[in-house]
Amino acid sequence: MHETTGLPVVGMVGGGQLARMTHQAAIALGQSLRVLASSPDDSAALVARDVMLGSHTSYADLAAFAAGCDVVTFDHEHVPTQHVRALAAAGHTVLPGADALLHAQDKQVMRTRLGELGVPVPRWAPVGSVGELAAFAGGTWPVVVKAVRGGYDGRGVWVVPSAAEAAELFATGTPLLAEELVPLRRELAAVVARSPFGQGAAWPAVQTVQSDGICVEVLAPAPDLDPAVAADAERLALRIAGELGVVGVLAVELFERTDGALLVNELAMRPHNSAHWTIEGARTSQFEQHLRAVLDYPLGATELAAPAVAMANVLAGPDLEGAAGLDERVHHLSARWPHLKIHLYGKQPRPGRKIGHVTALGTDLAALRRDTTAAAAFLATGVSDEVRHQ
Amino acid sequence: MHETTGLPVVGMVGGGQLARMTHQAAIALGQSLRVLASSPDDSAALVARDVMLGSHTSYADLAAFAAGCDVVTFDHEHVPTQHVRALAAAGHTVLPGADALLHAQDKQVMRTRLGELGVPVPRWAPVGSVGELAAFAGGTWPVVVKAVRGGYDGRGVWVVPSAAEAAELFATGTPLLAEELVPLRRELAAVVARSPFGQGAAWPAVQTVQSDGICVEVLAPAPDLDPAVAADAERLALRIAGELGVVGVLAVELFERTDGALLVNELAMRPHNSAHWTIEGARTSQFEQHLRAVLDYPLGATELAAPAVAMANVLAGPDLEGAAGLDERVHHLSARWPHLKIHLYGKQPRPGRKIGHVTALGTDLAALRRDTTAAAAFLATGVSDEVRHQ
Repeated sequence: MHETTGLPVVGMVGGGQLARMTHQAAIALGQSLRVLASSPDDSAALVARDVMLGSHTSYADLAAFAAGCDVVTFDHEHVPTQHVRALAAAGHTVLPGADALLHAQDKQVMRTRLGELGVPVPRWAPVGSVGELAAFAGGTWPVVVKAVRGGYDGRGVWVVPSAAEAAELFATGTPLLAEELVPLRRELAAVVARSPFGQGAAWPAVQTVQSDGICVEVLAPAPDLDPAVAADAERLALRIAGELGVVGVLAVELFERTDGALLVNELAMRPHNSAHWTIEGARTSQFEQHLRAVLDYPLGATELAAPAVAMANVLAGPDLEGAAGLDERVHHLSARWPHLKIHLYGKQPRPGRKIGHVTALGTDLAALRRDTTAAAAFLATGVSDEVRHQ
Repeated sequence: MHETTGLPVVGMVGGGQLARMTHQAAIALGQSLRVLASSPDDSAALVARDVMLGSHTSYADLAAFAAGCDVVTFDHEHVPTQHVRALAAAGHTVLPGADALLHAQDKQVMRTRLGELGVPVPRWAPVGSVGELAAFAGGTWPVVVKAVRGGYDGRGVWVVPSAAEAAELFATGTPLLAEELVPLRRELAAVVARSPFGQGAAWPAVQTVQSDGICVEVLAPAPDLDPAVAADAERLALRIAGELGVVGVLAVELFERTDGALLVNELAMRPHNSAHWTIEGARTSQFEQHLRAVLDYPLGATELAAPAVAMANVLAGPDLEGAAGLDERVHHLSARWPHLKIHLYGKQPRPGRKIGHVTALGTDLAALRRDTTAAAAFLATGVSDEVRHQ
């Protein structure tokens, strides 16, 4: 219990933007998020009072961190599973627990389990050699190869055009699996939360737009999605959360195949980029909901605050000559788009780095997307597309 | 400039809940609010990374604090005016500036200036003795007496029923003024923001409900208010902000007289309790808007997120036998009212202390008020009115 407030203390392992935005939500609940960060310059460490510096791969650091928490949760999946188990064995409350979290850490475990549950997934197989990969492909290339552990934002995923080009992947000995290249209409995500008590709550299914494997836009609710299919996606995510015993937010990334079928691509058990729009766009944000879940509070209402919501990520651009600094960019953006909500993560804008996002609420999704993508591009580069294209 | 983010640093003098909620808003803008707090247990000090402990009445502390800020602003009006002037003279950017802030610190200066501007205010006069008070009353009692400086939340305000009972007030030598007791229909507030550039933005005028001089509820927009009168109130507040050179949020507390006329009661130049509802209820919250203003960013859009918004303050109740602890109260409240937004300030719930607020958005104001006042009472006491009245 916090010595001043008398409320339980939530600790989050990882000091990235997810912890930063969770701290924002924590403040409203009377909380102050405790953060295990790797550097005082981490996104969350810049804004939280209760920061411990340490490594998420060191059990000693994790145990010292957990000692100051009533419940430990995560802003990423990279804590070694044995450490998560050891923390629980030492009497700490860790949510989601190791048995659930494993399905967000290990794609082979996840695919196997979802198959057992009858959840539709892409055709897949573990592969240990070029020969096994070629056998999986059966002459149909390209094939997708994924690292079993550790990938995110397009890292650890390769689209392999032929057996000859796969040799390099097997050289390092990283456990890999192969997957059919699904003929995609688009990607969707169903994000839900589940409490220890078993209460579940779903936000409407959304469309995610990727570029080079990185999410660049999220549209909520997913436009032109059959309401029955949307409801199926939400029910599927709630079912997975229940079957795996997830506590907290669960993001289920989905492929919508060209024939309309939904396949589960990935799972994340933490606040997720596909639900950043909920900060303004839903009655309860994913960050507040994650806290409610791990605190064993009843979950909040999830309905939309507007008929349509568009979110665009800000991926820092190259250093262009004459580009405005970040402060000046915010200034101009605020003047041009007074309705837009800005979220900056306190990160140095190194090229390609996710440094923030912008959200717009309204009724005309096409107009919202125009605004959010133009604003995100301007924040990313300091140069306006509207100006460049004149 | 912040050494990691490269963004300007905003410092707020005072570590109360206004600074706490400003820090929440600051995080989204890539900021981390710097706070001058009197104790590490202050509301804002519990959640902000960049906290300096010191006194807002010590010029040395203020100067040391300002040295780490690009702009200094306030969560209360209690910094001595000469210190505000000295900070500016030493080259610090202080917003609102001393010449504006004085009108929120000194009721005599404020009343005099508003009179010069032709702004309607209650009939008033400075009073230095019981004789002067009796002359002001002219036989009509009760009369309101106010301390010229330092009052808030009903402190420093007395409703005096007769000359005989006023002697005590004059004994201390505190500068006082007398005011007619205005025949009230209700109280309203018009909250606006103004940037250094002179841009102004108004939220819709609201109704504030007081109990013992303390705000207990805010209803937005003010129900059953003639739209022309509402627009007048908003224009009046924008005009006052411009005439006084305010930068940041300006709250104009108004009396609606029984004949419908509006009179200005008080001014506050900081985020204000009458606009806490803007966190969820408006596109841009007062906390973000205050930051935008002092950072000289263009102001954000102010329209409502729902047709009606109700906010109720949580004033901690007496320690009742068998009452639930605060954590358990949040638990039950979340179950009973999943749509309600909770804001807790991290304060020990001493009786009468403002420890949080709750907000509800919707269409049926009467239903929203029922929920917010019942939820606030439950958070305050740990005992449900609904239970008690069964």
